[in-house]
Amino acid sequence: MRIAVLGTGTVGETIGSKLVALGHEVKMGSRSPDNPKARAWVAKAGGGASQGTFADAARFGEIAFNCTAGTASIEALEAAGRENLAGKILIDLANPLEFSAGMPPSLSIVNTDSLGEQIQRVFPETKVVKTLNTVNATVMVNPGLVPGDHDLFVSGNDSAAKAQVIDILTGWYGWKRENVIDLGDISTARGTEMLLPLWLRLMFAFGNPHFNFHVVRGPGRPA
Amino acid sequence: MRIAVLGTGTVGETIGSKLVALGHEVKMGSRSPDNPKARAWVAKAGGGASQGTFADAARFGEIAFNCTAGTASIEALEAAGRENLAGKILIDLANPLEFSAGMPPSLSIVNTDSLGEQIQRVFPETKVVKTLNTVNATVMVNPGLVPGDHDLFVSGNDSAAKAQVIDILTGWYGWKRENVIDLGDISTARGTEMLLPLWLRLMFAFGNPHFNFHVVRGPGRPA
Repeated sequence: MRIAVLGTGTVGETIGSKLVALGHEVKMGSRSPDNPKARAWVAKAGGGASQGTFADAARFGEIAFNCTAGTASIEALEAAGRENLAGKILIDLANPLEFSAGMPPSLSIVNTDSLGEQIQRVFPETKVVKTLNTVNATVMVNPGLVPGDHDLFVSGNDSAAKAQVIDILTGWYGWKRENVIDLGDISTARGTEMLLPLWLRLMFAFGNPHFNFHVVRGPGRPA
Repeated sequence: MRIAVLGTGTVGETIGSKLVALGHEVKMGSRSPDNPKARAWVAKAGGGASQGTFADAARFGEIAFNCTAGTASIEALEAAGRENLAGKILIDLANPLEFSAGMPPSLSIVNTDSLGEQIQRVFPETKVVKTLNTVNATVMVNPGLVPGDHDLFVSGNDSAAKAQVIDILTGWYGWKRENVIDLGDISTARGTEMLLPLWLRLMFAFGNPHFNFHVVRGPGRPA
């Protein structure tokens, strides 16, 4: 499949390299057509890896991954071009982390709105599916790094798009189907983006990002 | 032990009944000295159960549980009296859920502050420990309702107070020591209060509140 990876950070590199290793053609998009980080990634990933502008990548991809920094996502996606993303699935991995006031970051969009919803509003013809934003990049593409059962959350308005994304998570990345929880429409992205403050405190407490949440269920309420 | 339970809702009733069953003397505090819900609870709980105003309860208790609605907590604690809570541990179970705009609720305090921090600022002589706010009341006092390992988070500025609270969680309520995660100072309450939007969406998805989060850890980052 032809895939756009928007963003040249650790998440974009990790997601992109895994996709190339799986045999896909991946174009990494950034602000400039010859971004040094993207160039280094292409050299390292080899095979089906290429780079270009956000618009080049979005035009190329049959689906797209938003791996940009959350506070820059809307601008990056505008640069990618509404028409190049129309009708396509956009897997939104970004979190609206605001680092300007130091550590720990706060959220630039929070509580009564979310980045996932903002993107869906600005790009109504794109099928936005929020997922993978609650785990470290290394865990995203290698869930076995964390032992046993642990979960991913999926939010989106389009059921068929969510089903396709769940196939990608399970078939390409090795997540167990029973460990992928469909929370509902894109407004449920508020919940997963707001998990980041706890995630960050746990990372500080543990000293590493190799952990994940498992939702353990008890019996249903008696009728 | 003499214990104050502030609040007459489901959380206060459940927490209080468990404490009475364990042989403690528990005074449930509310706005009025003869609250009908508190009176019904005293009749049902029997034994060491009693009721009174917020101030009566705070004066009575060697420790206190804040089981009031989060949006009313500061006012209730002011009524309980700064002097009656001074030097004591206040276990803060409340979440600042704002229901005025309908379901799902938003948070009235969020992101760069938390209810736990607000309470600690307003009552500097009280040792505020935030915990239990991420599980349903029935799970708080009966962790075995959810099978296997699942976790509680503890936030607070006073290490000795946190240690005492962890003893209460394990000794009285049956939480396993290895399932209690000390996140750090009271500012980490931001993380656990901000877990509520995800918690609520999961409750809607599952149709019942009998679940909890387990943080599953992988290997540390290689040195």
